[in-house]
Amino acid sequence: MTKSASKVIEKLQGRTLATAESCTGGAIGAVLTSVPGASKVYKGGVVSYCDEIKEKMLGVSGEVLSFYGAVSPAVAEAMAKGARNALETDIAVSVTGLAGPDGDAYGNPVGTVFVGYSDEKTTMFRRYMFMGSREEIRAQAVEAALMLVLEYA
Amino acid sequence: MTKSASKVIEKLQGRTLATAESCTGGAIGAVLTSVPGASKVYKGGVVSYCDEIKEKMLGVSGEVLSFYGAVSPAVAEAMAKGARNALETDIAVSVTGLAGPDGDAYGNPVGTVFVGYSDEKTTMFRRYMFMGSREEIRAQAVEAALMLVLEYA
Repeated sequence: MTKSASKVIEKLQGRTLATAESCTGGAIGAVLTSVPGASKVYKGGVVSYCDEIKEKMLGVSGEVLSFYGAVSPAVAEAMAKGARNALETDIAVSVTGLAGPDGDAYGNPVGTVFVGYSDEKTTMFRRYMFMGSREEIRAQAVEAALMLVLEYA
Repeated sequence: MTKSASKVIEKLQGRTLATAESCTGGAIGAVLTSVPGASKVYKGGVVSYCDEIKEKMLGVSGEVLSFYGAVSPAVAEAMAKGARNALETDIAVSVTGLAGPDGDAYGNPVGTVFVGYSDEKTTMFRRYMFMGSREEIRAQAVEAALMLVLEYA
C-alpha cells in the first residue's frame, strides 16, 4: 500500500487530493500521509463512519442514503464529490463498503465495496467484491482506492 | 494499538466519539474502526493535514494557527473542540505533531506531538516528545491519543 501511496503523491504533484472514508475509517489518509512530503498533495479528508456525517460533512443527500443505502454507487460518488467540494481539492476519492461482520439491509454481502472518484471532468464509481477477514477487506479497499486514483487522475 | 482501540470502544458504550487528526493522517480512525461494532461509538472524524482544513472544517482560528503554529497546545485543544462541535459527539480527541522529516518554523523538533481531548466538562491537551522514525512517531501518537481517551472519558 505504501508503494501505491508514494506513486499517488508523485503522480499528483501540482494537484490536490481529498479522501472520504467510511469502512476504511481513515486508513487511506493514514497510508497517504506515511509518505514524506504528502502534504504537497494531500489536504485531508472526512471519515464518515455514520450516515449523519456523510450528510452533514460531505453533503450526501439523506434521501439518497435511505433509498440506495450507504453502500451504493450513488453514495460513493456523492461522497467523492462532496469531499472535493468541502475540502476544495482537484481530486477526491471515497470508499464505502461492508468489511463485516454483517451485511446490510439492502442485500449487500460482506465484502461489497464501492470506490468513488471525482475530479473537475468526471465523477465515477467502481464496485468490488473482496474476500477475507475484516482487516483483509479493508486493506484491499485502501489499495483499490489508490489504484483508481492512479488510473484516472 | 488494536487492544487500546477495543478498550476505548468498550469504555465509551452509550457515548459518541470523533477524531481530528493531523500528523496521524487518519490512523486513529483506522484503528478504532478495526474493532467490530465500532460504529456504536465512533461517528467519524476530520483529517486536517493542512491549516486551511483545520480552519474550514474544524473552526480553528486562523490567528491562533499563525500565532502559535499548528503544532501547539492551543491548536490541539481547538481541533478537539472543533471536532466535537462539527460531528456533534460527546467526546473528541485530536493529534497535531511533527512526525518528520522536518521540524517547524516555531522551533519544535521532530517528535513533538500534542494530543487534545474535549468533552462537555473539559478541554485539555498533553504534550509528548517521541523518538524514532516517522512511522514510529505516528504509531506512538495514535497510542497516546487512545490512552488519553481511556484516562479522561
